Amino acid sequence: MNGKEGMDGMDGMDKGKLGAVTVARAALTRLMEPSDLAGLALIRVVGPVQAIRIAKGEERAGTETEHKIAGLMDEAGALRSWMGLESSMSRWAPRINDLAPERDLAVIRRLGGGLLIPEDDDWPGSLSDLGLAEPIALWCRSPYRVLPGLNRCVAVVGSRDNTDYGASVTGQISQGLAQRGITVVSGGAYGIDAHAHLGALAGGNEHLPTIAVMAGGIDRYYPSGNEDLLRTIAQEGSMIAEVPPGTNPTRYRFLQRNRLIAALCSVTVVVEARWRSGALNTAHHADSLSRQVAAVPGSVFSANSAGCHRLLREGSAVCVTDAAEVAELAGLCGEHLASEPTGATATHDGLNVDDLLLMDALPARQGSPPEKLSSVAGLGIASVLAGLGRLELMGLAERIDGNWRLRRGTK
Amino acid sequence: MNGKEGMDGMDGMDKGKLGAVTVARAALTRLMEPSDLAGLALIRVVGPVQAIRIAKGEERAGTETEHKIAGLMDEAGALRSWMGLESSMSRWAPRINDLAPERDLAVIRRLGGGLLIPEDDDWPGSLSDLGLAEPIALWCRSPYRVLPGLNRCVAVVGSRDNTDYGASVTGQISQGLAQRGITVVSGGAYGIDAHAHLGALAGGNEHLPTIAVMAGGIDRYYPSGNEDLLRTIAQEGSMIAEVPPGTNPTRYRFLQRNRLIAALCSVTVVVEARWRSGALNTAHHADSLSRQVAAVPGSVFSANSAGCHRLLREGSAVCVTDAAEVAELAGLCGEHLASEPTGATATHDGLNVDDLLLMDALPARQGSPPEKLSSVAGLGIASVLAGLGRLELMGLAERIDGNWRLRRGTK
Repeated sequence: MNGKEGMDGMDGMDKGKLGAVTVARAALTRLMEPSDLAGLALIRVVGPVQAIRIAKGEERAGTETEHKIAGLMDEAGALRSWMGLESSMSRWAPRINDLAPERDLAVIRRLGGGLLIPEDDDWPGSLSDLGLAEPIALWCRSPYRVLPGLNRCVAVVGSRDNTDYGASVTGQISQGLAQRGITVVSGGAYGIDAHAHLGALAGGNEHLPTIAVMAGGIDRYYPSGNEDLLRTIAQEGSMIAEVPPGTNPTRYRFLQRNRLIAALCSVTVVVEARWRSGALNTAHHADSLSRQVAAVPGSVFSANSAGCHRLLREGSAVCVTDAAEVAELAGLCGEHLASEPTGATATHDGLNVDDLLLMDALPARQGSPPEKLSSVAGLGIASVLAGLGRLELMGLAERIDGNWRLRRGTK
Repeated sequence: MNGKEGMDGMDGMDKGKLGAVTVARAALTRLMEPSDLAGLALIRVVGPVQAIRIAKGEERAGTETEHKIAGLMDEAGALRSWMGLESSMSRWAPRINDLAPERDLAVIRRLGGGLLIPEDDDWPGSLSDLGLAEPIALWCRSPYRVLPGLNRCVAVVGSRDNTDYGASVTGQISQGLAQRGITVVSGGAYGIDAHAHLGALAGGNEHLPTIAVMAGGIDRYYPSGNEDLLRTIAQEGSMIAEVPPGTNPTRYRFLQRNRLIAALCSVTVVVEARWRSGALNTAHHADSLSRQVAAVPGSVFSANSAGCHRLLREGSAVCVTDAAEVAELAGLCGEHLASEPTGATATHDGLNVDDLLLMDALPARQGSPPEKLSSVAGLGIASVLAGLGRLELMGLAERIDGNWRLRRGTK
């Protein structure tokens, strides 16, 4: 089964202490919006089980806890927006009655998935680069238990309203990445996202071809036109989200989802993007996480490439034109080195300047005597004679009755 | 006449000492190939008049002169290829009998041109960045006596076998540059070069629209298919070369010509270039002279854009998509700033995170009570009430019987 293992392998862990942690984190993903920094700080300080009790008002957080949260918010540069735990609790309170983590976990298990939590050995280490904004947990639907490491994941993103050109490049790059054993990560949306997933599925990577990172709950196929594609991804790749089943995708959640795509991948490739585009948001997340950003060039007359050209012009992205170049950016040192197109080599390659001057002076038909060549080429007679010998050896010059000309067939 | 002044204004200077210098330099351009570093060093050490006498064997160079030449060659990093003045003289000797500088100067004057020499006030200062490889003189055909300064010249270069796309972009960029008062410099060849000159001529720049830097003598129109274009350039722009009338263009002279294009311009734009292309040679010259290099992106499937993408990928070129962006690179500080496309602004631009969450939670038709919004948005009731007030003021939310929804027409 190539390392595939059903997520329901988690069943055993739901028991006992880890079980309680899983249930608590499942509940917290419903209680808190993605990147709720105060909530995430609370979880860091007291752990998920106590955090849910405090959020529910079953327990009070002491002054020391508040201080520690303030400290973490300060480190994350978010202290100014922090108005104390009570203010955060008023934000969580309206959702307390909706919590039903056991039901959510049962739903995801029925769909062949599970909840991946930071306490798991399989938790992607790349997400810790998000700092305090590291997600509470990841809801996953996949036959694969383990997400590939940072260097094995590349994000391929772009506009929803792609051009034919964008579709072709996306397909070729994604398929080529999958063939190289690289997992293509995208957002499951229409347009470039869909072509990225499709290309990856066609590439035959047996180590998880593609991951769709969703802005809403992974129990639904959104957008509905991508239902078949998303169903296939859930069966052959991985569908993941930090929000629980049943959650609507919202503008805010789309933007937060982009940070997850960026964090999971060593490279984010923007294939087509308008001057203002959600794909650029993913690119900026990648950049701020010190991940590599790449952009595919296109026609300067195509508005769908304007965002890519903007990234290139500002120096925020590297120019890539095929899967090999992307793989080289993603690869560990020395792995996946893109081979340079050799181009046609010309007959005069490698000639020294004098021999180049001499070759330029050689007539194509009627031969010239060395004295004439000396004047035309601007070389002393000794240099001409020595050079003619070298060019003759290289098959570039020939002698006819003491006169010299280019060998026939030489350009 | 907009600062136009015939080159024959030089007539007066041909008399007396400056006249002797002009004649000597005219002769030296025929005697020595472009970038003959030993020859150029000799001219620097003893001056052009004595240099021609030494080259002709009418005078002997002393040991001190040889030492000074060696010093200049050393500074230029070319000492290893220097085998003494005698060796250089053997290179010049075969051409001594061909020298007829007065005839060459008469030819160029008949064509409405003249010889520009470093001793002239109008000599382009930008060429001194070539160091020892600064040309001996420039043969010019133009109604303009003065070449524009570095910041007023942009090179637009590319493949001979351009695509329709390349022709369109070249035309737009060159015309736009000319309209901004920038002179478009190119090589007078087929393909991108020709479209660059044509676009510039169409742009209506009255301060010298375009300069063709030729690899051969400017008494002939080469390639012959460009005869009409080159004739127009000689009449409305400027045709220049460092080689004298009657000289054939050779491979070596094409490569040397490229260094002149690069040196004259603050920016070299490569519009279309294959993986191996002469245009890349110009770009490398520009780069080594610390001039700005720019490349136009294109389809990743077009072999004619592969060289441009190579420059972008290697970070040797800035991505440019129109004349405004090129002008910004060329411009003096603050001049020619490209205006950013504004793109459509969205109604949610500038909302804080809480109001964005709240707006995401508002239904489009049936209103929701604040308590429901509080749960859906994950915000405390106080934040919801304050946020609804703000959104109502901004025309984004409306109240219906105590319930709230998106204002009609809001997306």
